[in-house]
Parts: sequence; C-alpha cells; structure tokens
Amino acid sequence: MKKPRIEHDFLGERAIPENVYYGIQTERALENFNITGIPIKVEPVFVQALGYVKKAAAMANRDLGVIDPKIADYIIAASDRVIAGEFNDQFLTDMIQGGAGTSVNMNANEVIANVALEMMGHEKGEYDFCHPNNHVNFSQSTNDAYPTAFRIALINRLTVYSHALGSLAEAFAQKGVEFKNVLKMGRTQLQDAVPMSMGDEFNAFATTLREELLRIEDSKNLISEINMGATAIGTRVNAPAGYAELVTKHLCDITGLKLTLAHDLIEATYDTGAYVQLSGVLKRTAVKVSKICNDLRLLSSGPRTGLFEINLPPMQPGSSIMPGKVNPVIPEVVNQTAFYVIGADLTVTMAAEAGQLQLNVMEPVISFALFTSLAYMTNACNTLREKCVVGITANAQHTESMVRNSIGIVTQLNPVIGYELSAEIAKEALLTGKSVYDITVNERKIITQEKWDEIFTFENLIRPVFIR
Amino acid sequence: MKKPRIEHDFLGERAIPENVYYGIQTERALENFNITGIPIKVEPVFVQALGYVKKAAAMANRDLGVIDPKIADYIIAASDRVIAGEFNDQFLTDMIQGGAGTSVNMNANEVIANVALEMMGHEKGEYDFCHPNNHVNFSQSTNDAYPTAFRIALINRLTVYSHALGSLAEAFAQKGVEFKNVLKMGRTQLQDAVPMSMGDEFNAFATTLREELLRIEDSKNLISEINMGATAIGTRVNAPAGYAELVTKHLCDITGLKLTLAHDLIEATYDTGAYVQLSGVLKRTAVKVSKICNDLRLLSSGPRTGLFEINLPPMQPGSSIMPGKVNPVIPEVVNQTAFYVIGADLTVTMAAEAGQLQLNVMEPVISFALFTSLAYMTNACNTLREKCVVGITANAQHTESMVRNSIGIVTQLNPVIGYELSAEIAKEALLTGKSVYDITVNERKIITQEKWDEIFTFENLIRPVFIR
Amino acid sequence: MKKPRIEHDFLGERAIPENVYYGIQTERALENFNITGIPIKVEPVFVQALGYVKKAAAMANRDLGVIDPKIADYIIAASDRVIAGEFNDQFLTDMIQGGAGTSVNMNANEVIANVALEMMGHEKGEYDFCHPNNHVNFSQSTNDAYPTAFRIALINRLTVYSHALGSLAEAFAQKGVEFKNVLKMGRTQLQDAVPMSMGDEFNAFATTLREELLRIEDSKNLISEINMGATAIGTRVNAPAGYAELVTKHLCDITGLKLTLAHDLIEATYDTGAYVQLSGVLKRTAVKVSKICNDLRLLSSGPRTGLFEINLPPMQPGSSIMPGKVNPVIPEVVNQTAFYVIGADLTVTMAAEAGQLQLNVMEPVISFALFTSLAYMTNACNTLREKCVVGITANAQHTESMVRNSIGIVTQLNPVIGYELSAEIAKEALLTGKSVYDITVNERKIITQEKWDEIFTFENLIRPVFIR
Amino acid sequence: MKKPRIEHDFLGERAIPENVYYGIQTERALENFNITGIPIKVEPVFVQALGYVKKAAAMANRDLGVIDPKIADYIIAASDRVIAGEFNDQFLTDMIQGGAGTSVNMNANEVIANVALEMMGHEKGEYDFCHPNNHVNFSQSTNDAYPTAFRIALINRLTVYSHALGSLAEAFAQKGVEFKNVLKMGRTQLQDAVPMSMGDEFNAFATTLREELLRIEDSKNLISEINMGATAIGTRVNAPAGYAELVTKHLCDITGLKLTLAHDLIEATYDTGAYVQLSGVLKRTAVKVSKICNDLRLLSSGPRTGLFEINLPPMQPGSSIMPGKVNPVIPEVVNQTAFYVIGADLTVTMAAEAGQLQLNVMEPVISFALFTSLAYMTNACNTLREKCVVGITANAQHTESMVRNSIGIVTQLNPVIGYELSAEIAKEALLTGKSVYDITVNERKIITQEKWDEIFTFENLIRPVFIR
Repeated sequence: MKKPRIEHDFLGERAIPENVYYGIQTERALENFNITGIPIKVEPVFVQALGYVKKAAAMANRDLGVIDPKIADYIIAASDRVIAGEFNDQFLTDMIQGGAGTSVNMNANEVIANVALEMMGHEKGEYDFCHPNNHVNFSQSTNDAYPTAFRIALINRLTVYSHALGSLAEAFAQKGVEFKNVLKMGRTQLQDAVPMSMGDEFNAFATTLREELLRIEDSKNLISEINMGATAIGTRVNAPAGYAELVTKHLCDITGLKLTLAHDLIEATYDTGAYVQLSGVLKRTAVKVSKICNDLRLLSSGPRTGLFEINLPPMQPGSSIMPGKVNPVIPEVVNQTAFYVIGADLTVTMAAEAGQLQLNVMEPVISFALFTSLAYMTNACNTLREKCVVGITANAQHTESMVRNSIGIVTQLNPVIGYELSAEIAKEALLTGKSVYDITVNERKIITQEKWDEIFTFENLIRPVFIR
Repeated sequence: MKKPRIEHDFLGERAIPENVYYGIQTERALENFNITGIPIKVEPVFVQALGYVKKAAAMANRDLGVIDPKIADYIIAASDRVIAGEFNDQFLTDMIQGGAGTSVNMNANEVIANVALEMMGHEKGEYDFCHPNNHVNFSQSTNDAYPTAFRIALINRLTVYSHALGSLAEAFAQKGVEFKNVLKMGRTQLQDAVPMSMGDEFNAFATTLREELLRIEDSKNLISEINMGATAIGTRVNAPAGYAELVTKHLCDITGLKLTLAHDLIEATYDTGAYVQLSGVLKRTAVKVSKICNDLRLLSSGPRTGLFEINLPPMQPGSSIMPGKVNPVIPEVVNQTAFYVIGADLTVTMAAEAGQLQLNVMEPVISFALFTSLAYMTNACNTLREKCVVGITANAQHTESMVRNSIGIVTQLNPVIGYELSAEIAKEALLTGKSVYDITVNERKIITQEKWDEIFTFENLIRPVFIR
Repeated sequence: MKKPRIEHDFLGERAIPENVYYGIQTERALENFNITGIPIKVEPVFVQALGYVKKAAAMANRDLGVIDPKIADYIIAASDRVIAGEFNDQFLTDMIQGGAGTSVNMNANEVIANVALEMMGHEKGEYDFCHPNNHVNFSQSTNDAYPTAFRIALINRLTVYSHALGSLAEAFAQKGVEFKNVLKMGRTQLQDAVPMSMGDEFNAFATTLREELLRIEDSKNLISEINMGATAIGTRVNAPAGYAELVTKHLCDITGLKLTLAHDLIEATYDTGAYVQLSGVLKRTAVKVSKICNDLRLLSSGPRTGLFEINLPPMQPGSSIMPGKVNPVIPEVVNQTAFYVIGADLTVTMAAEAGQLQLNVMEPVISFALFTSLAYMTNACNTLREKCVVGITANAQHTESMVRNSIGIVTQLNPVIGYELSAEIAKEALLTGKSVYDITVNERKIITQEKWDEIFTFENLIRPVFIR
Repeated sequence: MKKPRIEHDFLGERAIPENVYYGIQTERALENFNITGIPIKVEPVFVQALGYVKKAAAMANRDLGVIDPKIADYIIAASDRVIAGEFNDQFLTDMIQGGAGTSVNMNANEVIANVALEMMGHEKGEYDFCHPNNHVNFSQSTNDAYPTAFRIALINRLTVYSHALGSLAEAFAQKGVEFKNVLKMGRTQLQDAVPMSMGDEFNAFATTLREELLRIEDSKNLISEINMGATAIGTRVNAPAGYAELVTKHLCDITGLKLTLAHDLIEATYDTGAYVQLSGVLKRTAVKVSKICNDLRLLSSGPRTGLFEINLPPMQPGSSIMPGKVNPVIPEVVNQTAFYVIGADLTVTMAAEAGQLQLNVMEPVISFALFTSLAYMTNACNTLREKCVVGITANAQHTESMVRNSIGIVTQLNPVIGYELSAEIAKEALLTGKSVYDITVNERKIITQEKWDEIFTFENLIRPVFIR
C-alpha cells in the first residue's frame, strides 16, 4: 500500500490517500460538510454534467490558445471518462454544502486533473503538469461552471421524469377508453351531482397530467439558459474574448442540448428564477397527482361501507390485525411523495429568496431539493402506473344502480319542468326515501312514462343531450 | 373650517388637517405605505394596547421623576381615552409598513400628545407642552413599545379565540353524548375497518380540540414576556435605572395580565420566537379543524351515493343548476379558513427568518398575519359550531345496517378462529358478496350460532370486549 | 320606507330589504359566511367579470332560442349596468365562502334579475318575469360561470400588475444607465469578490424583473382557458348544443380577451392548475423582488458602519428614539409584501390539493389569495418605484476607493501570475493590512508598474478584458 | 446455498431467500415501495423502538395469559436482539410507504418471528410455532404499535439533538464572555443604531437557543403520549382487558421513558398533533439558527468592503478563481439545513391535514420528514459549533473605531439636549461627513468637553447608564 500524498492549498495541507482521485479541497469538503450523508454521486447525471462542462471548457481554452493544447487534450480525455461514469465513486461531497458549489466544482477539477495526470504518465498530485485550478478550471469560476452543470443534469433528469409522467397519463387515457360506457354518479362537494361516464373521469386524469408535460417543456427552456464565461460575478473577468460563446457552442455539441448563453451574465450568475419556476412546476404536478390519488382512494373506498366504484389491484395485506383488509397503499405512497415535493418547493423558495448581491450561495440545497423531488416524482409516477392504474377495474353494475337510485338525476328534468319544481321533487325524494321516478311519473304524474324514457336513456344519462 | 396646521420633522414639513389628532409622522406613513388598504384600527385591541403601553410608560417616567408630573398626568389621561376606544379612527397606518412599527408607535405618540394638548387647553400641534417623542415616547423606543403593545393585543385576542375554540369543542362533546349509542363502521385508509360508536368519533373531535386550548396557554405564556425598557436595541440606553422593571409592573396592574420582563433584553428586542410558536399553534389547530371538516364532509356525503352517516343542517341551496342539492358549505368555508392560516404561518416564518442583527424589521407583517389568522379562526370556530355542529343528526339505522353487512366485523373473530382463517372468510365474502355471518355460521359452520350471538351483540360491536 | 319583500327557496324564506337588489340566496350567504369581513365588491373587476359572463350567456341563450328574447335583452341590459359598476355595492358576499362560489354566482344572478325586473317595469322579486336561476343562470352552473368570471377578472388584474412591474423594471434600467461608470466591488457570499459597474448591478435588477413579464404572459394564456357550457360537472347537461362554443365567442367579443374553450370540460371544471401556476409566478416575482430589496437595504447600510454604497431617498424619520436615523422603510415594506405573497401561494397550494372528484370546492379561498396577492404586489411595485428606486443615488467616490483598497482585485492578476501566487499575495494583504499594489509592485516586484497600470485601468476594472 | 422458502398470505405467495429474516409482507413492501431508496434501517433508533414495542407487548400478553408463555419468552428474547441492533440490516422497507406503517410493523413482526423460530430450534418460516400476526403482533395493530415505536424513537432522537443544540448555545455563551469588552455598533434595520457590547450580542445567541431547549422538552412531553392497546381504531378490539395499561407500564420500564397512555384512544389513534407541534419546534429553531448564521455572515463580511467585525475560522479556499478568498461556508451550510427543515415542516403539515376518519395514513412521510430534520439539525448544530463558533475572533479595534466615528452615538445626547437638536446634529454629520463630537463640542459648543467625556466613556458606550 502506497503512502498518502501530501497536497496543499493556501490554508495548509492534507494527506490524501494515494488511491483516490480527488484532492485537498474535496478532502476539506468531506471534513466540513456532514449534514445529509448523501454524496453527490447518487446523482450520476450531475457527475456526468460536470464532465461535460470541463470538457467543453478545455475545448474552448484550446481553441482560443489560452492553455497548452496537449494539456487540454488530456483534460478532454479525462472528462470523457468522467462522463462515462468511470469515476462516479470519487464524487463524495455531501449534497448540501456551503460555498455555493465550490466543493463540487473542485471535486470535479481535482478528479479530472488526477485522471489526466495518470493518463499523461504522471503521478496523481503532480499538479505542475495539470492543475485543478490553473488548467482544468481555466476561464471558469464555480459560479458559472457549477450552475451550468446543474442545469444540464436537470434537463436530463427532466427528460426521464417527463417520460414517466407521460406514461402515467397514457395509462389513465387507456382506462378512459376502457370505462367509456360505465355510467356513474358525478359528485361535486362530495354530494351527488349529475351522472357521467367513468371513462370521462379517467380521461380527465390523463388530460390534467398531459398539461404538465407542456409545463415541463417550459421549465426545460428556462433551465437551458446558462452563464458559462460569466466567471466570478458575470463580468467575464479572466475569461478570454469569445470564450463564453465558444464554450456554449461546444457544450451544445457535446450534450446534444439546445443551451443558450444568457444575455445578462451579471443577472444570470445570481438568478435562481429558473429553479423556482421548475420547482413550481413540480409542485403543481404533485398537487394534481395528489388530487388524483385522493380520488382513487375515495372511489375505491369500501368495500361495503364506502363508494366502491372501482377496485385497485390488491398489493399487500392491509392490516396486521384486520383480516382480509386491503388498502390503497399505492395511491397513499404517491400522496406522501407529493407532500415531500411540496415541502421541497418551500425549501427552494427560501433558498432562492436568500440570495444576496452577486451570487445565490444557497444553490446546493436547491439542487438537493430538485434532484430528490425529480427522482421521487419519477418513482411515484412509475409506481402509480405499474402497480395501480393499469390494474384498476370498475364495478359498473353498482355504479349504474347508484345513478338510477339517485336524486341527482332530477337535474335533467330542469329544462322540462323548471328548477323550482325539480327542487321540490328532490326534497321529497330526500325526505321520504322514494325514487325520483316514482314521484315524478307515478305519484305526481308530472311527466309521462314516454317523456321519462326519452330523457333517461342510458345514452342520455352518460352523455346528456339537451331536451326540453 | 380651520386651516391645517404645519408640522415638521428633520426631513421637512407637512400640512396636517386641523381636526385630526395624528401628526407629521403618521402623515408620512399614510403617504409611504399603501399596500393592503387595511388600517390598524381594524384591530381595536391593538390600539387599546398602545394606550396601555403609553400610560404605563408615563406612570413610570413620573415615578422616576424623568418627566414633568403634570405632563405625565395628561399623557395618562389621554392614554385612558385611547384605551377606551375614543380615538380608534385616528389609527390609520396600513397594517403592513416598513420601519419595524415606528409609524404605529408614532401614530400612538402623536395622537396621545395631541389629545393631551387639548386636555391641557392647548392647540393640537403645540408640542412644546407635550411632545410625541420627548414626552409621550420618553424612555421608550419603537423597538420595545411596539412589540409590547403587540403582545398585549395578542393575549387579549387569544382569550377571545380560546373561548370560541373551547365552545366548539364543547359542541362536539355534546354530540359525543348524543350519538353514544349510534353504531357505525370505523374506517382506516378509507377502507372498512371495525365497528365503533359514533359518539366516540364526535367525542374525539372534542378531545383533539381541547388539547389545543392547552397549547394556546403555552403561547400566552411565551407571548407574555416583554422587553419594555430595552429601548433601541436592548442596552436600555436612555431609560433611567429601574425603569424597565417599574413600567412592567405598571403594565401588569393596568392590563391585569401576568407580563414578565425578559431577562436578556438584547435577545428579546429582536427575537420573534414567540410569534413563530404562536403561529405554529394556530397552524396546528387549523390542521386539526381542517381534518375534522374533511371528516364531516365525508360522513355527510351522499345522500344516495355517499356515506350518508350524518346530516349537516342545510344552510342554503347548494347549486344554481342542480335542484335540491345541499352542500356542506360550513365545513367548506372552515377548511378554506384553515388554508389561509397555514399560508399565514409561512408568512410569519419567512418574516421571522429575515430578522437581522439587533432587530427584526419584519414584525408588522407578522402582526398582520397573526391578527388576521386569529380573527378568521375565531370566526370559523363560531361559524362551525353555530351553523353546523349543533345541528348535526345521525342516520343511525343506516349506519348500523352498514356495520351488520360489513366484512370488517370479521376482525372480532380473530381471537377465536385466528387471523388466517378470518382472512379467508373475508376474502370469500368480498368475492361472492355473501355476508360474513352466512359463510361462518351457515355454510362453513366455523362457529355456532350461539358463539356468533355472544360475539356480535350490539354492545360488543360498539364497545368491544375481548372474547376468545 | 317600504316593507321588505319575502323571498323563498326550497329551504324556506327570508325578508329582504326592499332597496337591495340581491335576494334570498345572497342573504343566506351573508348569514352563513362571516370570516374575513371583506366583501367581493372590493374587487370591482370581479363584479364586472360576473356581468360579462351573465351578458354573454344571455346572448347565447337568446341566439339559440332557449330563453325568451325579450327577457334575454333585459338581462343583457342589466348586465351592462353591472359591468359599468353601477351595482358594485350589492356584491356583499364574503371573499371566503363555502359552496364553491355558488353564493357569488347567485349574488350576480339575483342582482341582475332584480335590475332587469325594474327595467321591465316590475317590482324587485317578481321572479316569474325574470328568474335568477331559470333565466339569468340559464345554461349555466356556478361551476362554469364562477371560474370563468374569476379568470376574466384575473386577466384584467394581471394587466394592471404587469404594467406596474414593467415600470419598476424600467426604473431600475434607468439607474443602470445612470450608474454605468460607478466602479464598485462585487461580492459573492458577502465576501469581496471582483470589481464591477454599479450600473450593471442595477441593470441586472431590470433584467430579472423583465423576465417576470414573460412569465405573466404564460399565466395569462393558461388562465384564458375557460369552461363555459360545462355546466355542473363538464358533461354539458342542461346546456343546448353549440352553447359552449357560442358563449365563449360572445365573451371574447364583449371582453376583448382571447378566451378559449377547454377541450376537456370534465377536467376543466375541477382543475385549478392555472391558479397554481399563476400563484407560482407571483411567488417567483415576490422572491426576486424580496432579493432585490434585501440588496438595496444592504447596499445602503450605514451610514458610517455599513456598506454605504447607495443612498435611498429618506421617506420618514427612522426612529422614535435615535435622532437623525433614516431607515430603508420602502424596501422593508416590499419585503413584507413578498412574504405575504409567498404565504398566499401556500394557501393556493393547499386549496388546490384539496379538490375532490368533479369539482374543487376551495376556489373561493384561491380567489381571495390571488386577488390580494395581485393587489398587494401591484401596490408594492408602484411604491418601490416611486418612493425609492427613482431617487436612489450612488456614493461613487466611496465605492471606487473601496475597490482600490480591496484584496479582490488580485483576481485580475491570475492569468498573469497564476492562481497560487495570487493567493499568496491575497493572504499577505489580509494578514498585514497592506495593499495588493504595495506587495505586488513595490515589495515583491512580481510585476512592473507598467504592467500594473495596464491591468488596473478604471476601464479594465469596471469592464475587465482578458490580459495575460 | 439453500433454496428460498415459500411464504404465503391471503393474496398469494412469494419465494423468500433463506438467509433473510423478514417474510412475505416485507417482500411485498420491497416490491411496492421504491420512492426514496432510503430504508428505515438508516434510523437505528426506530428499529430499536420497534423491538421495545414488540417486547413489551409479548410481556403483557404473557402476563395476561393470552399467548403461550414459552412463545412469549422467545419473542422477548428475539426482541432483545433486535433492540441490540443485531438485525438492523433486515429493516429494508422504504422510509416512505403506503399502508400507514403496516409494512414497517410487519417487517418487525416477521423478523422477530423468524429470529424467535431459530432460537426455538425451528426453521425460519415455520410460523405455526411463532407467527408474525398471531403471536408477535398479538393484541396489537399497526395503528398502535407503529406510532408508539415512532414516538419512542423520536424521544431518543430528541435527546441527542437537544444535547447538540445545548452545546451550541454554550459555545455562543463562551464567546459572550470572551467578547464582553468588545465595543461595537448595534444596528437596527441595517442602519447604525447605538453602541453595544459584542459579548452581549453573542450571549443573546445563547439565550435564544437555550429557549429552544425548553420547547424541545414540551415536545417530548407531547410525544410521550402513546396509544398501545388501542388496536385498530382505538376501541381496543381484540386486546384483552387491562392490556393497554400493562403494556404501557412495561414499555416505561424497558425504555426508561415516562410514557403515558392517552385517555382518548380513538383520538390518539389518528391524531398527529404531537408531530405537528414537534415539527413546529424544529422549524422555530431552524428559523433562529438561520437568523444567527445570517448575522455571522454579515458580521464577517469583507474583509475590506464589508462590516469586518468578526473573523470566522477559514475552513477551505473560497473560490476556484478568486485567490485568497475565504467564504463563510459553515454558516452557509447551516442556513441551507434550516431551509430543508422549514420545507420538511410543510410536508408534515400537509400530511397531518390529510388524515381521514379513524387514522392518518400519511404517518410514514411524517416520520421521514421528522427523522431527517432531526438528523440534519443535529449535524448542523455540531458543525456550526465545532467548525465555526468556537474559532470566531473579534476585530475589536476596528469595531471600536467604527463606534467612535459613528453618528449613532448621538442618541446618548437625547436626554441631555433633546431629540430634535440631536436629530439636527445627526443630519449635519451625515451631510458634511463631520463627527458628532466636532459639531457638538467644537463647532456649536452645545455641550462642554467635560460633559462629553462624562457621557462617552467606554463603559457608558458599551453599557449605557442614564445621564441627563
């Protein structure tokens, strides 16, 4: 076993185990930040995005002749290996850190420098030949490199999430087709309202989630604005002329994403608006998904003393004490995921508001909140689809008989007999327990059997046509 | 009509209508702060509390010989008239202001100075004889006078609120007695669980709200700690020795409240912890009340296609289109009030976090949030009690028949026949639609009719005893 | 004085004062809902929008021949008077109500019916000739009429708000030009970073707010989707064929807005996604405005022991005890407004999540939260612009001298002498109190006076060019 | 390698790897719940608490003669091994699950049953001899066992957290003593106010945190109320008479905690009030800690263009581009932790509000939020103390010279020369840049040098006495 190497910075020195690729600044981060115990490597897309950024910077620096092209090539080669995931285990910085991402950026700089050094035939730590700051980080600051990598990682995460959400919407749409001719009572304010098709109910879940896909695209557009070349505070200090535009172009080529350079780099360097917007979109979807799960749980309530309109696939025994009980555990876990996401949105809000002057130093907790929300929501969408939605069945006979026995069908008499007479019938039905039919046709003979039959066909109950 | 008087401060001068009692600094506040359009006079307890503070300060200043006793006596007399509500209409400062309450404090200082001046026989504005700063505000800063008045007002508001909440709890407790022998199905996770007494369900609402009364008392204790005599930042600068203790004593005597002087005045001058705690208590109650309203709406759902366990008193036609529909409008408005309070708690949280160094300048929005939350919650409790809870009736026959037909009663067979056999029966009942009784006694003869009758008495269903 | 008229509905009767235009259902609302004490008439755009909706519905009903054209014409004429604001004082329903807006819708229906009746020559209350439900509300439900009116009102409110926000951005942009050549220290993490132009700092405030204008347009687009003709739950029950499309067209014509009919009316009737999105946009702007105000307060801190970079116009004496103190009261009140808006966003979130099945019954509290947030934010933007931003001045000599004496300028030596040597100089400067210039040029002679002069020109400090 | 065993429940069967101690229901949980990827074993105190609960239940069941004493003894012995942490790796259920904790409870029941079986000499899975439901879970439901274990775990976590917070308060108190005679300017609203001792400023941090220790004790008291014996919904169904009281007593003995049995078990089974309160306390502390960190960052701003009152120990190079820059990374990471906790409080609020009828099914996400908040806050307190507070130093000369040059000292002239003249001097000082001393003593000769010296001693500046 080899001796640790000694690395130094302007605050002192640290012994670094020989086999690790990170250096003294990462080591300090490991000492300083022990909050969540969750290292950034749990988000491989983030590590990958750091590789993209470092590669593109090296390319631009080489093109502009500001670093030795040979060193640049090794940085590019090392970055490619980071992009490929070969060194994920070297990204150990805690997800929440102080320093506005400096530790994450230096973690990347150090790993890439040492990988490059080895590829050059040097020992790790021989930074004269390839230095984390003077070479890998050239023309960059944490304040542009870190948010750019973060944004690229978010876009890639959003693509995965969008797919999961879209698939969930499709699953609901398929149920919409399947339940097209299931007649059921619509309810407003939890009170019986008017009849409807259960297919329309499920299709509406698809509609409401598909709208979210558009909002995710909005977010992607906002997130795609980057500030590479802004360096420390947006003045481009220490970056050569043309660098910002060139590195952006290289990043687009490497990642295949449509990234754009912010026109106001001062603003772009501190602004967290795109994160707030994205978090708001995630929250909005969480609100909708939670509402849907509330509905699924309500509609499947029972079996004997609830609404019992639908059956969710039974996933596990529901009780350690009540035999045969099966609970809607999948919607329940999705509701809870939604509550997490709504809470995380507040974390993002607080962090965004706390930005000061030329930088928002709270960006790491924003990344923690967004990455976990995206991962959990993706998991929740997939879980809800696979383990619940696709297996839902309808109790069509029960729901139709509930409609036929309901008072709510009286609304369809409105255009024929007026609101006030309808209300009178409804009230009598409620007080006596009689059916609307009996009161209207048999007892009070307000309309004829023929008229009744015309109005209350199955077709007209499930997809009403105006009749007067 | 008399000419306006000209008042000045170190920034300039303003013409003040002769008939108003406030002066230039209030006038500036009216110019500067136009956000909510809601003046502080909508909270008469706040105006009153300002009067208490100014009176107590004048008494202490007089006792300590730091202001002319004759002037002090006029300040006290003027304060008494403010306390009595005679000048509420002079407190026009917007509920949200900058300046950490300075405008509110000066509003009080100016009104009291001018009232005192008139009582002395002077004209309003002749501040040489009684000055808003040099006399009324003597030994004080906004930074102690304002929060002290705010706290006194909160305590008085809390007393009113606590009474409303307590009465609501009593109303539920009475329903608990009334519904003692109503047998119904208990539900967990919206699935049929085991039988219970509806009285116990309503009594639990009383229990859960009564716990809140204790939490309100905790809040009152924390809020009762004041910082009079701290002056600007807690160093007691410009307050005579012994003043802080003396003015606190006078305030206790005048208000009848058990106020205590904070032992660390530096901390007490910026700390908003007591407001955060109080807001948290309000939020907790809002969460509970919202849960109760959700339950009331669920239990009264129907009439034909819902749970239909209880009837809420009908308060208004429920629909402009659906005849006879009656909605649970009272729980609905209370739910919404709860959401307001939960939002307001976040406002308080943000404002508390934003405090810097020796003062939290965001206290006015905290007062806005707390005063509105307290008022709305008080109204909501009274509304829920008067217009809903006292009139709730139970559909006892329906709920008992639901229990008898349920599968959930199988749990009571557990100790007799074991969990797995019970689960088997439950599953068969679910799949076939048969009753647990039929399967257990008639078809599979697992237990005898006698054993069944022993286990499933009304008494044992509603208040189960362990039988094996 | 005339006797009150007696009105009835299916729950009973009420005496209605003869002079009022609303009827029994509004009267019940006044009895039932006493939470905020704030009537909907405080939002005249909402009353106006209700008029638009009722007018368009009457036009469509007339066109389709489903109500007597003469009655329709009177409804239209009466609606026009409501639109003109003539009957604002009749809209007294509390901003927070149960019933999902039924009381507001009926308030409109009743007022318009009675206005129409008087125009016809009838007495108020003679509903046989023009009935709130059977005529004014024909082809409508609260569940489409209420949200449509709400959305129209929001769009009109957003236009006003957008103008205020845009003007604020312009004011910052003008300061950006004015301070173009003010050299100051940029700061990250509250630590001295690198020099910049104060003009760029202020221009970035303009940039960040202008982005919000685009987000407001997004919101307007989402809000413009309406569900007229959906009636109770989106099945179009009781609305004649073609009505939904026709009434939407009329509404566009009347309001001049580009409203579109939702393609999935089931979803549109319960979905609150557009409100959540709009609230999120308001929150995002609040976060940004709060950040800006934090910066303004920080930059103007002092005068002697703070940053003292800028001067805010003095608006009022800052203290009742500390003479001459002037506080940043305008940014402070704007910060607090932002905290209100962030809290209100949570209220909207909670309310949106609480929707169940075919309707979200919590829409009134959403309207309360959004209307107050929009009003307060509009006021805050105008206040910040008029009473603060336009009067800001820079302490240019002070800020330049701070730059010259800073250590942060060492960054500009990086490309010339390398990061590590620069760091060494920085450390020495910090420990000894010496200037970077002295250490670099005089003592250690690392670069020549000529090179120093080349790098550290005013122009290169304020708008750095890459020099190595 | 042995074959997997086949286990079954009423929904079917699963092959369980022979070496694991959990069974089919845990296996189903692993299939169903993949949201966070964080298993409950990351909270060993939770696993331990489950062991306590199962042990106490077995003891009570044995005492009451409802299960075979031999089996009970084996359950107790197996529980002891779980308590000791021997089987932590078997607790793999995701922190967020549906089912209200059923999976966690069954995870414990299954592990203990299998451990007991092996201790008996049986094979794992031979549940006839010791069954997860019929023996380990006897007299229990998830609905009492799970929250009881959760509460015990919280209490133990709170003890650790309280210690960390208390130590942080002590560290501030020690700085309070150390900086007792450091004279500095107090600031309100970021404007220079009046002088103070830096020791008092730091001591106030200690005071404000010590208050939190009392609030934590309040929380512990509320959390200590348990519902063992409530079984499914609080009716005690299937638990023998006297069981609830007996198992509570055993739990107190085993854990050494003062647990009490709730008097209303119906309410206690669904109520989440204690969690809301605890979360609110954590939030309050987070708000305070965040405020303190904001102050530390502000006070250490600079070094040349900020307040530069204190120095935080340098922990790492602050920038990848700006040499020598050192940032306040420790307060920054603590701020971010606070934002996480504030967000998590919202998650708890949402989850608590979502409870329905006899159970709150959202308890798992509450446990996730509270456990992470407690862990992160504990880490943050320790980090802040060790890596920041203990190493803070004061720039005493600088802060004293700022006081001497300030305008704010003019307040101390108030009682001698009156507010208005003081304000005049202040204004002149501000406009001309002159010192208060020069204007007052030299130029305008308002007071004598002797009076000045009497008022402005170091002692009177730092701890002012009233002088007129």
